[in-house]
This record gives sequence, C-alpha cells and structure tokens, in this order.
Amino acid sequence: MADARAKRMHLGVFFNHTGHHIASWRHPQADADANIDIDHYVRLARTAEAAGLDFLFFADSAATAERTPESLKRSAQYTAYFEPTTLLGALAMVTNRIGLVATATTSYNEPYNVARRFASLDHISKGRAGWNVVTSGNPAEAQNFGREEHYEHDARYDRAREFVSVVHGLWDSWDDDAFPRDKASGVYLEPGRMHHLDHHGEHFKVRGPLNVPRCPQGYPVIFQAGTSESGRELAAETAEGVFTSNLTPQSQKDHYGDVKARMARYGRTPDQMKILPGLTAVVAATRDEARAKWDHLQSLIHPKVGMDYLSMLLATNLTALGLKPDDPFPQLELHAKVQSQGMFRNIMETAAREKLTVRQMWERLAGSRGKATMIGSVKDVADEMEHWFSLGACDGFILQPSYLPGELDDVCHSLVPELQRRGLVRTGYEGTTLRDHMGLRRPASRYARNSDG
Amino acid sequence: MADARAKRMHLGVFFNHTGHHIASWRHPQADADANIDIDHYVRLARTAEAAGLDFLFFADSAATAERTPESLKRSAQYTAYFEPTTLLGALAMVTNRIGLVATATTSYNEPYNVARRFASLDHISKGRAGWNVVTSGNPAEAQNFGREEHYEHDARYDRAREFVSVVHGLWDSWDDDAFPRDKASGVYLEPGRMHHLDHHGEHFKVRGPLNVPRCPQGYPVIFQAGTSESGRELAAETAEGVFTSNLTPQSQKDHYGDVKARMARYGRTPDQMKILPGLTAVVAATRDEARAKWDHLQSLIHPKVGMDYLSMLLATNLTALGLKPDDPFPQLELHAKVQSQGMFRNIMETAAREKLTVRQMWERLAGSRGKATMIGSVKDVADEMEHWFSLGACDGFILQPSYLPGELDDVCHSLVPELQRRGLVRTGYEGTTLRDHMGLRRPASRYARNSDG
Repeated sequence: MADARAKRMHLGVFFNHTGHHIASWRHPQADADANIDIDHYVRLARTAEAAGLDFLFFADSAATAERTPESLKRSAQYTAYFEPTTLLGALAMVTNRIGLVATATTSYNEPYNVARRFASLDHISKGRAGWNVVTSGNPAEAQNFGREEHYEHDARYDRAREFVSVVHGLWDSWDDDAFPRDKASGVYLEPGRMHHLDHHGEHFKVRGPLNVPRCPQGYPVIFQAGTSESGRELAAETAEGVFTSNLTPQSQKDHYGDVKARMARYGRTPDQMKILPGLTAVVAATRDEARAKWDHLQSLIHPKVGMDYLSMLLATNLTALGLKPDDPFPQLELHAKVQSQGMFRNIMETAAREKLTVRQMWERLAGSRGKATMIGSVKDVADEMEHWFSLGACDGFILQPSYLPGELDDVCHSLVPELQRRGLVRTGYEGTTLRDHMGLRRPASRYARNSDG
Repeated sequence: MADARAKRMHLGVFFNHTGHHIASWRHPQADADANIDIDHYVRLARTAEAAGLDFLFFADSAATAERTPESLKRSAQYTAYFEPTTLLGALAMVTNRIGLVATATTSYNEPYNVARRFASLDHISKGRAGWNVVTSGNPAEAQNFGREEHYEHDARYDRAREFVSVVHGLWDSWDDDAFPRDKASGVYLEPGRMHHLDHHGEHFKVRGPLNVPRCPQGYPVIFQAGTSESGRELAAETAEGVFTSNLTPQSQKDHYGDVKARMARYGRTPDQMKILPGLTAVVAATRDEARAKWDHLQSLIHPKVGMDYLSMLLATNLTALGLKPDDPFPQLELHAKVQSQGMFRNIMETAAREKLTVRQMWERLAGSRGKATMIGSVKDVADEMEHWFSLGACDGFILQPSYLPGELDDVCHSLVPELQRRGLVRTGYEGTTLRDHMGLRRPASRYARNSDG
C-alpha cells in the first residue's frame, strides 16, 4: 500500500479571495466580494471536497498589504478579508472530509493561543486541521503589534523554531486516554495523564497544560513554505507539508532533493513530508481557448498594479528607478528588506534566462503569485503535471485557481478527473483525517507509555 | 416600538461543557464528552435558536483551571475544551439567527488579533457576533504567557480599557462604503475611506488599518461581567451587554442602578446597555419534581470537589483551615488574590444572612456557578423571573442550564413558551443581527461623513 500511495499525487487547493491572478476580481465570472462573502467559500469548499482534494489552504497576514495609493485602489488581495482560523471553523461544518489548513504567524502570536486554536479546529473538524507556520517579515505587520520594524530574518526563524516546539509540547499535554469520564465512579480524568510542559526558552516561558485535549490527529499537520536557509531547516525539522514556489521542474527538483536530504539530521524519513509546488492550472477544451482565457485575465492588470506588485516582491521601488513597462527587466542584488529570498532568486534567474520586459515579468508573476503556471488543454496540463511528478520533483501540487469560482470548477470537473483516469490521483477519500489523505502517520505523544503511542 | 421592546426580557444562554452544575457530567442524561464534541454544541445551538433566544454565550480561560489533584480528577469544567472563537465560527454555519458571544481576555492577547477574529466572526455570521471582554486574574494563565504572576487588578483594567478602545478604533478602519468593487473602472476600494488608527498609548502602539472590512453590525456587541469598581466603570464606558451574578433581586437591582447611573459620564443612555443576571432555572411539571431533579444533581458533588471549588472562589484553602463539610461557613476578609470581588462579597453576605454550613455553601454555588438559581414548576420560575424583571432589576437573563442537553430542552420547551405567553419574551426573531435581537443601535463609525453614519 505504501508503494501504491507513493505513486499518487497529493493535491491541495489554495483559496485567495477572488483568485490568485492579481486582476481576478475584475473577471466577469469572479465573485468580486469574495473576500468577505462566506457563501463564496462554502461553495468553493464543497467543490474541492467533491473532487476529493486533500485540503484547502489559506494564507494570512496580520496587516493590510502596503501599496501605493494607485495600486491599493485597484487591488483586491490581502486588503481586508476573513481571519482564517475562524473561517476554517465555519468551513469545517459545511464539509466532511477535506483537510483545512490555515496560516498563522509565529511573530505576532503567543504559542499557547496558536496551539489552542489549531487543536480546537482539529476537534471541530474531527481530524482535518493543518497549521502553516510562517514568520512575519513585513513592517506593516510589526506596526500593528507595537514594533517599529519587523524582526530580522534569523531572529524570526529562531523564534519560529522555539514557537513550534512549544506548540508541539502543548499538543502533548493530555494523553489520548486522559479522560475516562466514568460517571459511576466519578473519575472524569486521570491527573497522571496530564502533563505540564514547563518550557523555559529564549523566547517563551510556558507552563501548560494546554486546555484542549489531545487532537484526533495527535498533532494538526504542520505546513511550511520558507525557502531561505533557515526556512528549509525549519521545514526539515518540523514540516509535514511543504509549499514551494519554483517555476521550472528542475529548480523544483533541486529544492525537493535539498529539503528532503536535510530531514535525516532530525531523525526524520522523506515519507514524513510531502513537498507541493504551487500551481496555477489554466485548462480549457483546447490549447487556444486556455490561452485566450489567460490573455483576457492578463489584459485586466493595470500597469500601476503590475509595477507596484514587482516593487513589493523585490522590496525596491521600480517606478523610482525610472523603469517603464516595456523596459528590459533589470538585475538587482538581494538585500535585507526582501521578504521571500526564494522568490527574489526565482525572479532574477527568470529575468536572466528569458530576457523579459518589466511588463512580461509582472504578467508572469502577478497571474499566479510567483508560482508555476500551466496553460493548455486538459491533456497538456495533465502531461506537464505528470512530467514534474515522474521526475521526482514533487509529491503533488497546491492548486492556485487564478479566478474564483470559475477556474476551480474547470480544474475539478476536467483536470482532476483526467489525473484520476491516469491513476495519478486517488478517486475518492480513503480515510477521514488530513493525515490519512496525505499519507502521514499520527504522531505518538512524547509521553507515550509504549511504542504504540 | 421602543416602549414595546422595553417591556420584553432579553434571554441569552451560557453553555458550559456538560452544564453549569459542577457535577453535571455525572448526570445520566448529560453528554459527558461535551467539552470536545462538536455535535453536542450543534444540537444545543439549534435548540436555543428554535426557542428564539437572543444569543449563545461562551466563557473562556487561557489555562486549565488549577485544582487539587483529587478535585481535578473529578472535574469536567474549564479543564480541556474548545477555543471559543473557532467554535463560534463553526456554530455560525449551523444556525441562522441566534447571536454568538465569546469571551477573549485582554491580558494575554493583542488587540489587533482580537479585533480581527471578532470582526471575522461578525462577517461569517452576517452580523451575529459579540465579544465578552475579560481580564485574566488567574496565575495559571500568566504562566502560560511568560509571566510568573498575573497583572494586578487595576493594571489589568487599565490595559483592558485601552485594549477595547484600540479594538473599537480598528473596527472603524474601513468606511461602510469603502469597497465599490467596480469591475469596469477597475476601482476596488476608495483609499480615502480607509483609516490608519495610529494609536500610541501606554500599553499598545497600533497603526492599522484592520485587515477586515467594517462589520455588518458596525461593531460586534461588547459584553462585560466585571463587578469591581474598575469593572463597573469599564462596563459603563464600553459594554452593551452586562452579565451579572447576584443572588437576590435587591442586590441585582442595586447593581443595575449603579452601573446604568455610571453611563451618563461617558455620554451614554441606559437603553444602550442590557444588564442580564446569570440564572439557573430548574423547571419541571411540579415543584417537587424540580426539587428532586436538583437534589439528584447536588448528591453527585464529591466533597473534595465542593471544598476545592469554594477554596478557588475565595482564593483560600478551606481544607488547610481545618474546615469540615458540616462546619459553619466562616467570615473571611477580602484579599488581593481573589479573582472576582463581586463573587467574594456575595458569598460573605449570603453566609452571614443565611448561616449556611460549608456544604450548604458549595451546594448553593457549585450548582449554578455562583449565579441565581430558581427551582420549581414552570409557573413558579416564570413568576420569579417576572418579579425580578418588573422590579427593574434586570433587562432579562442569561440562562445557565445545570446539565446539558436535558435542562436546555426543559427550559426551551416549557419555560420560554410560558414567558412568551405572558408577553415577556418575543415569540420569534424580529431582525437578523444580534443588535436587532438586543434592541441595540448599529454604531456609526468615528469617521462617518454625516450623522447617518
């Protein structure tokens, strides 16, 4: 069975307001008020579950994205939207099987509060919760939490590492059998099966126990998306789902091999982690139709939005550098204000390799938020996904529909069935928890009294 | 219409795991695993909504309650349970009308995070969220957040006051019409209708804007339950629902008059606040049957649990004082470790007035968690509620069923209909938001361009 599963792709889907394309909200078939319309998300969640996908994924930020006023005016993404843990509580009740993954930052939360919310979600959803661990490298977030500047990159990861270890510790506060709840004898719980963490670290002092019983999944599934040296180490140590953003199968394969190779030093085996690149899959009956759909979306990007988006990714004001949309894209040096080092490197490599203009670069990136884009007939895109997968570059994909709900419907009704016909994706849920869907073991508690945990 | 409403009681219901009676989990008809069974809460929420109650209310703590090992072993309350904001996200999807109120502490959260979660819940529920503002006076909570001791009483309230003002400010970040979302012109939002709070206070520095649009209710409804001098002032300044814990109609009436009188100095009128005492209503076909139900619950309290419960409320180890269950209850002096000063005073007054034994005191308090208890036929209890209400002691009640789901069913199927027949309670929902149910106005934004807000 392990072998059969190893040959299957894992597919998640990342919902981002009106869609991942930066101009998606303007698409005639997009729900423009998606950011705050619960019915939009209910519909999406049910579509994804009907297609049997492993999980829904939500990003997060603790601030409205900083933009120039002209770009702000025209941007729907990461402005004002649902807080993801409350949203996932809601979506847990309108779905039965699909996993529910939300992002929460380790920079501006307390580990006790985060441990509680995700454990609570795991109980509410009966074992379907996942936590995407991020650090906040955004000055706008810092300023909402009493700081002038965000933490430096390594300090953020240092805090994140300790944060995750505290959260794991809190999730072990109660043994699985801590609560006999025997009405006759009056014994509700066994105090010997409750554990104080008594953590005294550099960043946190946390006594415990967590006031939530051990989760159906043992621990909610940990996701991570960092691509820097510290990010990869944190992933190798703690992540079970890794969300990557490579634009070519080779760079994805290198990334995959690098992160999986780091796991051994933490006593982990490669099967304990699924690495999934983000993918915008634009499919239609024919290649030309798919291309026309995409070109239409691209035409909706206002130049000020495109310029501002690149400036944000590079932490460099391109307009101030005097660049125009049709100028050749410049080579820049990595600097400390850049939030995602991996993204920065990808952009510079792509610019050097393909000699793109500034406009071509924003069209390349703002459409799929810097992740891979595959455009074509259902067969074209399935072939390309199969190519990445058979090359050993990934364990599956995180789908990033460019506009919603339209493209999710296309993907779920045509692309996923094609991948199922090829035997690359399972044809239905084989278990009930997110760990079941992703082929991940339920972790034993650190206090387990025997090896069965 | 204002007059008609003024004559109606507001009824909320406070769900507390297996019920408010400390031994409720042992009741044959109680859901013993209620603390972590989402289906239990779905059933309760639907029952309360079918009865037309104004809201569900959830308490919270950021720690497992500290108890002696013997008491811990036998206690189901505040040990390990759902985190309330994720739980309310879930309950929003299985209900349509009933309000959803959760507690979150101002001591161990950041205002930006709290503002987000409650605003998000208000959007998810389409205008049904409320936030019960508390301060944490519990050393066990402090130790989960890097502190050896909790904040002193006045410092806690000082922080709470600033916290609420920041949250209110963040809830005004976006005007109601900030998002035109005009696909044709490409204008998603009007930057001039977005506001940075730029708060620089003693406890918090928060720039804003909040990354959630203005709520359907303007602000979620603010609840408060503090009874100390600082607690009453905070309520007078900010609360729209006040949850009290008086055992007699006279002490409730005094409390009511005192808090409403304080509102004027904050420019508020008495109708902007509903004061609701907690009430355990034990009803049956006859007075004897109701009494027998209650006596059965009381018989399930283990003496170590009763003794430990009183010791916790008084922050005084009664066993160490050499007290036995059948000794007269002692008079004690208020001291700094007491968490609820109001509760302490109630206990001492009751002990002096009624000359109870220690056991009688825990039976009095542990059954309804220190709130009023009315036991009798449906007519008896409706009469007593009507007496409190007609005396001008309250604007309604927060029902605290002693065991769940059984007593909620009794109350919703017999007591509420009786109150409706008397014209004391409305017979169905007349609006869609929690503000509608409670007869509270939607607040205008501080940035409103005209008096219509």
